[in-house]
Amino acid sequence: MYRMVLLRHGQSEWNLSNQFSGWTDVDLTPQGEAEARSAGRLMKEEGLRFEVVHTSLLLRSIRTAEIALAEMGLSWLPVMRHWRLNERHYGALQGLNKKQTALQHGAEQVQVWRRSYDIQPPPLPSDDPRHPRFDSAYADLAPEVLPATECLKDVVARFLPYWHDRIVPQLRRGLLPLVVAHGNSLRALLKHLEDISDREITSLNIPTGIPLLYHLDGDLRPAGSRYLGDPEAAAAAAAAVAAQAAIE
Amino acid sequence: MYRMVLLRHGQSEWNLSNQFSGWTDVDLTPQGEAEARSAGRLMKEEGLRFEVVHTSLLLRSIRTAEIALAEMGLSWLPVMRHWRLNERHYGALQGLNKKQTALQHGAEQVQVWRRSYDIQPPPLPSDDPRHPRFDSAYADLAPEVLPATECLKDVVARFLPYWHDRIVPQLRRGLLPLVVAHGNSLRALLKHLEDISDREITSLNIPTGIPLLYHLDGDLRPAGSRYLGDPEAAAAAAAAVAAQAAIE
Repeated sequence: MYRMVLLRHGQSEWNLSNQFSGWTDVDLTPQGEAEARSAGRLMKEEGLRFEVVHTSLLLRSIRTAEIALAEMGLSWLPVMRHWRLNERHYGALQGLNKKQTALQHGAEQVQVWRRSYDIQPPPLPSDDPRHPRFDSAYADLAPEVLPATECLKDVVARFLPYWHDRIVPQLRRGLLPLVVAHGNSLRALLKHLEDISDREITSLNIPTGIPLLYHLDGDLRPAGSRYLGDPEAAAAAAAAVAAQAAIE
Repeated sequence: MYRMVLLRHGQSEWNLSNQFSGWTDVDLTPQGEAEARSAGRLMKEEGLRFEVVHTSLLLRSIRTAEIALAEMGLSWLPVMRHWRLNERHYGALQGLNKKQTALQHGAEQVQVWRRSYDIQPPPLPSDDPRHPRFDSAYADLAPEVLPATECLKDVVARFLPYWHDRIVPQLRRGLLPLVVAHGNSLRALLKHLEDISDREITSLNIPTGIPLLYHLDGDLRPAGSRYLGDPEAAAAAAAAVAAQAAIE
């Protein structure tokens, strides 16, 4: 009854250097740009005529959308951007190398921060210049919604109002939306749609740059989904994400 | 630093007949219309030049805004409407006379439904024709956000995303908004702004039809508020609301 496509941004500079990025505004790598072009080609071949596009406020999602849409000849589409689609805020871990962090805090502790549903990493101090309150992209927001750290549970809570208020009404009106976001904001949506348990959701791996076409029934319940393109390529990409254990 | 005005709709038909209204779409009484005109006059005398107006999807809030704005010569203002500003959904109690309900369920039980923060009244059955899923005003929404009953805690949870996503950004951009809503959706906002406890918020009485001018500091914390017009009239109106114990 309803369709939409979810797309995780392509490889970023900090995916490549194995640093926790979170809300850090890192750009795509050349490989990430290639992934975005490839995503655009797959969606074009599928004949998807999007009518509206959603991105986070982070450059790697914005540029993935720009590149994919240009590939489709759909650069003119209206775009909505919102902080609620942002990646999970990784607190004081942002900028740290994942291996170094494991050496410093112990692999077990890092695993807890990365794989638990409701435990936040240590927060950024509120006077840290990297705190989102110093970023003009978030100047319109009340201080109490600006995270200094987040667990996946926090991401679910802040993502869902956007789903219900912005995306669902578009689906209800018959529009075909493209949602370009991040590993954890897309996890938040899939958790809600598929009713995935707190325990299982943290090990769900969404490959970068491979469009996920979703069918929803009249009650907006999942009625089938598939990654576009070669199924083996999608599985390999998800496995690569899992292997890198690249929660951002 | 920031200013806004909160206005609870004037007397409705079911305020008058002492029935639980909730999401039932009852109109204003002639007295309710007079309250709305009076609110408009008070805001005009105060020199408030609103730039945007918010209402719920319920007629009594919409008409209160229309009448007050006409009184101010501001009928041309852009208006945003949203279900998140709606009154608390009163479940299966909607339509019942408050006295009859007390006789039927016991005054104590009714008091629990009306005055507890986190206990919902019995829900409307999902096949009840009064369930919001049969109302075209809510056709754009996912089933899981449409309430069949609500406690005040539920209202707080569904109201706040609207505050953060729609009203706060307007304040941040220097706009002066008028928010016309309901006893419990305004309670939800005041609870958040003033950090009122779960216990105390249920006995906070907001008078109908009297504009509440709010000043907020740069962090959107309250920096003073007052009811416009005669302070004794506002106090008397709040006392009348308390006496009628008219949670809708």
